[in-house]
Amino acid sequence: MTPNSSTSPINVALIGYAFMGRAHSNAYRQVGPFFAPRRVPRMKVICGRSGADVERARKSLGWEESATDWRDVVRRKDIDLVDVCTPGDSHADIAIAAARAGKHVFCEKPLANSLKDAGRMLAAVEKAGVAHMICHNYRRAPAVMLAKQLISDGALGDIRHYRGTYLQDWMSDPAAPFNWRLDRAKAGSGALGDIASHSIDLARFLVGEITEVSADLKTFVPARSMPPTDARRGSRRAPRSREMRTVTVDDAAMALVHFANGAIGSIEATRMAPGRKNYNRFEINGRLGSIAFDLERLNELEVYFESDPPHLRGFRTIMVTEGSHPFVGHWWPPGHIIGYEHTFVHTVYDLLEAITNGTIPTPSFIDGVANQRVLTTMERSAKSRRWEVVK
Amino acid sequence: MTPNSSTSPINVALIGYAFMGRAHSNAYRQVGPFFAPRRVPRMKVICGRSGADVERARKSLGWEESATDWRDVVRRKDIDLVDVCTPGDSHADIAIAAARAGKHVFCEKPLANSLKDAGRMLAAVEKAGVAHMICHNYRRAPAVMLAKQLISDGALGDIRHYRGTYLQDWMSDPAAPFNWRLDRAKAGSGALGDIASHSIDLARFLVGEITEVSADLKTFVPARSMPPTDARRGSRRAPRSREMRTVTVDDAAMALVHFANGAIGSIEATRMAPGRKNYNRFEINGRLGSIAFDLERLNELEVYFESDPPHLRGFRTIMVTEGSHPFVGHWWPPGHIIGYEHTFVHTVYDLLEAITNGTIPTPSFIDGVANQRVLTTMERSAKSRRWEVVK
Amino acid sequence: MTPNSSTSPINVALIGYAFMGRAHSNAYRQVGPFFAPRRVPRMKVICGRSGADVERARKSLGWEESATDWRDVVRRKDIDLVDVCTPGDSHADIAIAAARAGKHVFCEKPLANSLKDAGRMLAAVEKAGVAHMICHNYRRAPAVMLAKQLISDGALGDIRHYRGTYLQDWMSDPAAPFNWRLDRAKAGSGALGDIASHSIDLARFLVGEITEVSADLKTFVPARSMPPTDARRGSRRAPRSREMRTVTVDDAAMALVHFANGAIGSIEATRMAPGRKNYNRFEINGRLGSIAFDLERLNELEVYFESDPPHLRGFRTIMVTEGSHPFVGHWWPPGHIIGYEHTFVHTVYDLLEAITNGTIPTPSFIDGVANQRVLTTMERSAKSRRWEVVK
Amino acid sequence: MTPNSSTSPINVALIGYAFMGRAHSNAYRQVGPFFAPRRVPRMKVICGRSGADVERARKSLGWEESATDWRDVVRRKDIDLVDVCTPGDSHADIAIAAARAGKHVFCEKPLANSLKDAGRMLAAVEKAGVAHMICHNYRRAPAVMLAKQLISDGALGDIRHYRGTYLQDWMSDPAAPFNWRLDRAKAGSGALGDIASHSIDLARFLVGEITEVSADLKTFVPARSMPPTDARRGSRRAPRSREMRTVTVDDAAMALVHFANGAIGSIEATRMAPGRKNYNRFEINGRLGSIAFDLERLNELEVYFESDPPHLRGFRTIMVTEGSHPFVGHWWPPGHIIGYEHTFVHTVYDLLEAITNGTIPTPSFIDGVANQRVLTTMERSAKSRRWEVVK
Repeated sequence: MTPNSSTSPINVALIGYAFMGRAHSNAYRQVGPFFAPRRVPRMKVICGRSGADVERARKSLGWEESATDWRDVVRRKDIDLVDVCTPGDSHADIAIAAARAGKHVFCEKPLANSLKDAGRMLAAVEKAGVAHMICHNYRRAPAVMLAKQLISDGALGDIRHYRGTYLQDWMSDPAAPFNWRLDRAKAGSGALGDIASHSIDLARFLVGEITEVSADLKTFVPARSMPPTDARRGSRRAPRSREMRTVTVDDAAMALVHFANGAIGSIEATRMAPGRKNYNRFEINGRLGSIAFDLERLNELEVYFESDPPHLRGFRTIMVTEGSHPFVGHWWPPGHIIGYEHTFVHTVYDLLEAITNGTIPTPSFIDGVANQRVLTTMERSAKSRRWEVVK
Repeated sequence: MTPNSSTSPINVALIGYAFMGRAHSNAYRQVGPFFAPRRVPRMKVICGRSGADVERARKSLGWEESATDWRDVVRRKDIDLVDVCTPGDSHADIAIAAARAGKHVFCEKPLANSLKDAGRMLAAVEKAGVAHMICHNYRRAPAVMLAKQLISDGALGDIRHYRGTYLQDWMSDPAAPFNWRLDRAKAGSGALGDIASHSIDLARFLVGEITEVSADLKTFVPARSMPPTDARRGSRRAPRSREMRTVTVDDAAMALVHFANGAIGSIEATRMAPGRKNYNRFEINGRLGSIAFDLERLNELEVYFESDPPHLRGFRTIMVTEGSHPFVGHWWPPGHIIGYEHTFVHTVYDLLEAITNGTIPTPSFIDGVANQRVLTTMERSAKSRRWEVVK
Repeated sequence: MTPNSSTSPINVALIGYAFMGRAHSNAYRQVGPFFAPRRVPRMKVICGRSGADVERARKSLGWEESATDWRDVVRRKDIDLVDVCTPGDSHADIAIAAARAGKHVFCEKPLANSLKDAGRMLAAVEKAGVAHMICHNYRRAPAVMLAKQLISDGALGDIRHYRGTYLQDWMSDPAAPFNWRLDRAKAGSGALGDIASHSIDLARFLVGEITEVSADLKTFVPARSMPPTDARRGSRRAPRSREMRTVTVDDAAMALVHFANGAIGSIEATRMAPGRKNYNRFEINGRLGSIAFDLERLNELEVYFESDPPHLRGFRTIMVTEGSHPFVGHWWPPGHIIGYEHTFVHTVYDLLEAITNGTIPTPSFIDGVANQRVLTTMERSAKSRRWEVVK
Repeated sequence: MTPNSSTSPINVALIGYAFMGRAHSNAYRQVGPFFAPRRVPRMKVICGRSGADVERARKSLGWEESATDWRDVVRRKDIDLVDVCTPGDSHADIAIAAARAGKHVFCEKPLANSLKDAGRMLAAVEKAGVAHMICHNYRRAPAVMLAKQLISDGALGDIRHYRGTYLQDWMSDPAAPFNWRLDRAKAGSGALGDIASHSIDLARFLVGEITEVSADLKTFVPARSMPPTDARRGSRRAPRSREMRTVTVDDAAMALVHFANGAIGSIEATRMAPGRKNYNRFEINGRLGSIAFDLERLNELEVYFESDPPHLRGFRTIMVTEGSHPFVGHWWPPGHIIGYEHTFVHTVYDLLEAITNGTIPTPSFIDGVANQRVLTTMERSAKSRRWEVVK
């Protein structure tokens, strides 16, 4: 890859238009006005299987064209960047095809549904010499960036403990219907790949490589009712008797972990914690201090320094909304908080700048593979019922 | 005003391009993708005094044209809505001219720098039969809307106490330089009009009309240095010796208030509270419960119900991020928080819908005048050193 | 008064055995084991009007004797210290008699039901040359002591704002029956003297003298039912039809205040804030920092320093449970919190040490009179509806 | 054991006079005035190895006699209850001797330094037919009692997750000197037995039996300097060069756990978490709700109910200070918080009442053995690096 001195727009194709498609679209719309990247994104085409649905999405999300065949789209000459927002079972096919067509690739997490696929994806983008990035957007919450900076600067000293929990509650009720995220074939795994993967990424970003794990997976609700076919199609006919479907993924995942640098930790994810909506929380204890973060209050970072005078030590709640904080100067004055979707804008900005610079952004597919390796080892450990080395 | 059955865009002219101009521009860009109003806004023209600056703003904020003479702009045939984001001393002239030209008017707070001007503005829009709205955007934080709903439903019973504080700290340091917000001629008043006005608006929205006040205004730092002329012009010549300028507004404002419904309260605003960045907080106590809100955690509402079983009573922290909460369904899933600027999107959405429906949105200029009347009475009380009736 | 080099016990007579009597008794029992004062208190006699009740109290609270006539008790040769825990209407008589008999006097707040009585009490103790103290125990919460220390050391710079609220909810329900605290003849005033007096004491302790006030008093529930006579006597006969009695004190008190040092503030007390149980909270903003305290979390102090690096500023929550914090070293290791009653133990300890040293402890009756003066001025201002000078 | 209808005092012998000795002594002093047990404790004799030290403790803590040979003490005819507050390595000898002498036994946690010893202790007390209790005092924090009540009543539905962390920071600094708690021979284990044992007890109390564990133990600081001999003896001679001593216990312990009822969980304890002083926290998620507790705010319980209306759901912070809450009615009015030591008073009260009733209080030595079994299994799992069944 060579830096591209041009200031021409970067033409984007987005594959998928559901939750993540909306979040990525917003990022492409907002990155220009607030971050003024040297090369702005041009929202060229959005692609999905249902022509009518994707056309509706096109209109509401602001794309120029809609399409239904991703194979055509990723080969289009006028596309620079392919953004993969589909369920995990199609990531590999799309990303590899895009890389072979010479496109930069931005892919939702987890990178793939298997470590093998993830490896193939990495090989493909490296062979093609394109930029590649996995969307672990929470790295770019300003508070997380500040945490990273504090750790890198040694302000916390040697890290000893990482405690990551990602808690949600939307599957707590056994009456909540089946959906694709409960289907192993589609989603690869459950809470593990969907949300523990974020906690693993933050652990790797902030503490370092995970070397071994002892993990546990649990499915509390083994089967759920299918939503009535009609509902699925938007019709209003009376539902037939409810068909049950086996849940083939975990509802909850827990693991003890060891880090290469000697730190120890735990990672837990569940969709069964009533009251926790998007509680992606970590606490890190180092020799010289501690930090804590909670995504539900993403504008805040709690920090404790042993270097404060003994009678004045305490966790301080930093409003990470100052102009001097990472990314914040592009938004609003101090105390004017930002939201969930801003983390995607930051991610996309860094991706665009990397493409312009001819560099590989982070987290890249290398991180995606490393993350997948941890996920896979956790599944292995949950089966073997013993510590397993990440490899 | 008659409802306009057309679905043609609403053409907007924005006067002013500073902080509020950026926030309003963002709202016009975002309201379409997320709220799908029947008539979308078309960002026609942005207007400011400096041609070069406004052209830069045009590009970054996404407007079609830039202009430097607001008198021309508000008369343009192709403009439907004039959005006034200038300092308070020009609100009346612009809004009245716009109304006379038959344009709908959206105006930043406070409505004007005097009650007389505010009254003239209201008269003008009413005579013209146009839609008019004052931008007290915090009404439309979902948590504030939920608070309103609880009060309207009687869930808190008769309201007894309102306690509103709007605390910031950006003027705490006496070395912070002079700016237009410290100039009575430009800004009308200091913390009073700038931020206490928001607290007054929330009090009126949630509790009702304020009937009398006992107020106090204080200027802690009586003079501040001018920023070097060169800095003001962006040049790099060495600054001359620093000129001092008298601060002609209040740094802090406090008031006791009585409400028409028998409730009592206090309102305080200051720019001198270290650590409080945008701490627009209120607590309301009713016969049957209490609520508390803090803009720095705008996705949360604290609520206490006397109707809970005695051993289970407690302030609950509601994450106001559910699809069933006001406005939230248009954004993200539960627990995925929104930010400061979203309150403007909600406000603009309701404004556009009101224009489409041929109705007057709230808060309208009627509220702007009522707010101004309270502000004016507070100034009068601060001078007379006694309770004054709001009139 | 001369220091008493003896290490003989200090013989105490306690007048009153209700809520405050229990809290003071506990302090006398606990001060020895934890603080080892040079002269320990000897719990000689407890005095109340009803012989049977006071004898029960004697047994459960650990006093040697009980008595029913305080006039006899305060004259007893073997009494060194008279502790006045009765309703406010009898403070003056008891304290003055005790002083005349040469006893040290410890008195619950407010000092008296009138400024005149408070002045007579001060004159009496000064003439007698005895130690005198008013029980504003919250000064001696370790977190409040730490706040005082920070302010005295200049760590907050010049103080600009004091914001004190003391919120409770036990009178919120109009069905809650009448009691002596609602009777002006007994209690002097309502929320004002009962709890605003604490907030005034903290303001005076931490910020300085209050020079003028604009106050407001409100009675939301003008009459309440008497508890059935039988219930008052503990009998079980059926209650007669409920007699209503006029509430002659305020349910809520609010004031704006000016301090001698140029700071401004507000003080509010109410018994009508559902969910606030004992919410004695203050926030103080100085030129260089801020502090906040809430009695419901009395082991914590929130502190913000402008001197922290800009990107690391935030309110830190100090667990005031370190051995280096005021009083704490006498209790438990860090993080092992103390409770409400410990503030009385600290107060009594300092009282005993002052008596041993022959000094006057603080807050003394001088503070009690000053506090009463503010209370009286607030009542005057509430009537005159204007600012009144404290004098 | 038969109920003892007498109301004679229960004569207590306390073995040990350090931190726990002080906390237990306070409980014996306070239980009478606040709880009025039918049989009050009589603080007969305190016993320790150093005659001078124990005599000082006797005076300050309020015991009638001091002694230096526990073997004599536990055989005294006038002793009813032996309270064991020594390091873990002497628990078994003392408790067994006491039981054989027919005394009721109250013992600090962990019950012993080995499962074998714990079993012998249980056998001894059961054979002797005396009352036995292990001091897991945190069960009797009112908020924990409320949590238990909610779970027992089914208010949380089936429990799915337990997340217990007990974090402290007093060993974080490698320069902190060696002490007996770091010596396996004395203490049995480190953070595991000292504080994880509390978290295990709360898990068993609130969720149920733990059936299998995967655990990890870590020693971050392998050796520490001995405090100078002189310091240990209180002399002031200059210390000699510092001798290092190997730390033979864990600094931190982590485990995944399975419960008999199908719930899963994690338990972690460390003395290396800067800023966490006594952070004994748990969160429990059930099918119908969640609760969270933190010992540093022990007067509060956070509770979330799925049964609340969807738009009003949120974690409520219950101030567990109402008269209707467990134990609270014996202390102060609502909002007047209690402290750490009160949990011991509650524990001792229930112990005294059980002795009076002739019943076995909980947690008994049966619980102590069960707890020890989990601790032992965790140690085994940490070595085998696999899940181990608790047996």
